[in-house]
Amino acid sequence: MAQRQGKHTIILDNKPYIAGYGSVVGKKEFEGPLGHEFDAHDLDSRFGEDSYEKAESLLQKIALETALQKAGLGENDVDMVFAGDLLNQCIGSYFGLRNKNIPLIGLYGACSTMTLGLSLASLMIDSGAASYAAAVTSSHFCSAERQYRFPLEYGAVRPQSAQWTVTGSGATVLSAQKQSGKPYIDSVCFGTIEDLGVTDANNMGAAMAPSAASTIKHFLEDTDTTLHDYDLVFTGDLGKVGSDLLYELLESDGIDIRCRHSDCGLLIFDRKKQDVHAGGSGCGCSASVLNSFVMHRFESGDFHNVLFMSTGALMSPTSAMQGESIPGISHLVNIKI
Amino acid sequence: MAQRQGKHTIILDNKPYIAGYGSVVGKKEFEGPLGHEFDAHDLDSRFGEDSYEKAESLLQKIALETALQKAGLGENDVDMVFAGDLLNQCIGSYFGLRNKNIPLIGLYGACSTMTLGLSLASLMIDSGAASYAAAVTSSHFCSAERQYRFPLEYGAVRPQSAQWTVTGSGATVLSAQKQSGKPYIDSVCFGTIEDLGVTDANNMGAAMAPSAASTIKHFLEDTDTTLHDYDLVFTGDLGKVGSDLLYELLESDGIDIRCRHSDCGLLIFDRKKQDVHAGGSGCGCSASVLNSFVMHRFESGDFHNVLFMSTGALMSPTSAMQGESIPGISHLVNIKI
Repeated sequence: MAQRQGKHTIILDNKPYIAGYGSVVGKKEFEGPLGHEFDAHDLDSRFGEDSYEKAESLLQKIALETALQKAGLGENDVDMVFAGDLLNQCIGSYFGLRNKNIPLIGLYGACSTMTLGLSLASLMIDSGAASYAAAVTSSHFCSAERQYRFPLEYGAVRPQSAQWTVTGSGATVLSAQKQSGKPYIDSVCFGTIEDLGVTDANNMGAAMAPSAASTIKHFLEDTDTTLHDYDLVFTGDLGKVGSDLLYELLESDGIDIRCRHSDCGLLIFDRKKQDVHAGGSGCGCSASVLNSFVMHRFESGDFHNVLFMSTGALMSPTSAMQGESIPGISHLVNIKI
Repeated sequence: MAQRQGKHTIILDNKPYIAGYGSVVGKKEFEGPLGHEFDAHDLDSRFGEDSYEKAESLLQKIALETALQKAGLGENDVDMVFAGDLLNQCIGSYFGLRNKNIPLIGLYGACSTMTLGLSLASLMIDSGAASYAAAVTSSHFCSAERQYRFPLEYGAVRPQSAQWTVTGSGATVLSAQKQSGKPYIDSVCFGTIEDLGVTDANNMGAAMAPSAASTIKHFLEDTDTTLHDYDLVFTGDLGKVGSDLLYELLESDGIDIRCRHSDCGLLIFDRKKQDVHAGGSGCGCSASVLNSFVMHRFESGDFHNVLFMSTGALMSPTSAMQGESIPGISHLVNIKI
């Protein structure tokens, strides 16, 4: 049985082990600092498809199949998949996985979806509802720009606070059986919506930072731990602007996270050499970094106890046009080995 | 511990009891045959808001608050809410519940979302991760038409196979504590994607029927039961066209469901008097009918053992324009008293 600890945190009893993981990215991500960490990439980000949306669907398929292969599993072994993306009606997930014949749970949590899915998959393992459960998310720069901002052909100029949506996907397969030498999910913390009234759709980092700060605080309070108990705290895609705001927000609560923080959106691109402004973003950002770089560091013995959090900004072009603010939500998993 | 039975079904051990439920609908739904069953309604479907999207957000808030009130609970008592809707980026859910300070799990399962959320909430109760968990979904005719088809002002003519998106919302609050005389969720069955190649966005019933047939068959096989073991099987929103197709599909497998089937989309409107063509549809259709009519029949002693299934058609305007078919997915809960 899972145990609630405090208001927000759930300590898992039957720990879900990470049996396999997979990542796939586009050209720009492959050319970034983590390029060699990813399982697969494509050199024009179309992946041989005739639309960016279809390319994104293919990304999810490749990521899940890679994770299954590494886990030594077939599709029929997996009891359920939690999947989500940024596209309207989650077509990246549903069309990417439609031929898989695996019970499918569609999620929408903006860029928080990877840890949302991983948390739910963990609870399915813990509860006995699944022997194997998977989580997968994706994003694609070109499909996201067209949907959220402008078609690329318009050549719109992006402000420095804007982030670059990662073209990529990551998948994690969890197992109820202990996997010797492999990391496991120890606990999960679902986020609440935090809304400080940010309205600039080109500054998602600032919109997400308050929810990241809130979830970290909730988890530390609930578990009676401090940042010193963890190797590192990862955020999904706060980028430069959001990370700086996170430091400020936590500092006002007496928490100095600077030396123990890393942001997937800042890791995946070289901001000096690649024209990405404030850093990477998108569902595929934390998903691809988690299922490559982070997992590799657990395998190499560099990491033993990590807090990993995907961070989401909640808005749509319609909500923005109707004058709504952009609230944020962040979900956290504690990964140990 | 939950127990898997067969490939798709999960039998719950700690049964989640339905502690409270709430429903709210628009003008047309209030004027329909179930009008007197709903907790609340509005006479112009705007609910005092200045946009249909904001009205839809308010629907979710009202439904959840009504369910909590009936359960005698405050917002702080609920450990997590599973919420979803049809709007891009699920703004109905996220904006409707943003001030609730409850950990929020955003879902996208098209019109299958009510039982998707209810299944996950049930598993959270069963696993010990939550003492109280809620599920809520909504849809709104005007926001859905604008987003999926045409703005209402265009006056587009709808074919007879088209369905009418329900303006409504329903919420269910589950409790880990036995609630004397109240129904509970006995088991859940997550659906797989079924795609028979339907491409007509004005015939969602036909797109969803194969997945409804598949989930019913999976559940009956897994539990080694027949339709005679249940009072009734509800589908979410197959409407007239989809229901007829469901009968045909199941008949080819030797299952005659005609006398034990009811469709929320056919119950909520009077097709002879109300101009809804093939019936009602939308996330709010099965949600509002479940959390009014169905619950009332359990209370009155008419129902003892019901299979309830929300049915979803997976598409977006973009996927349709790119020539994709419309796959379906249906998730089932077995409700007993």
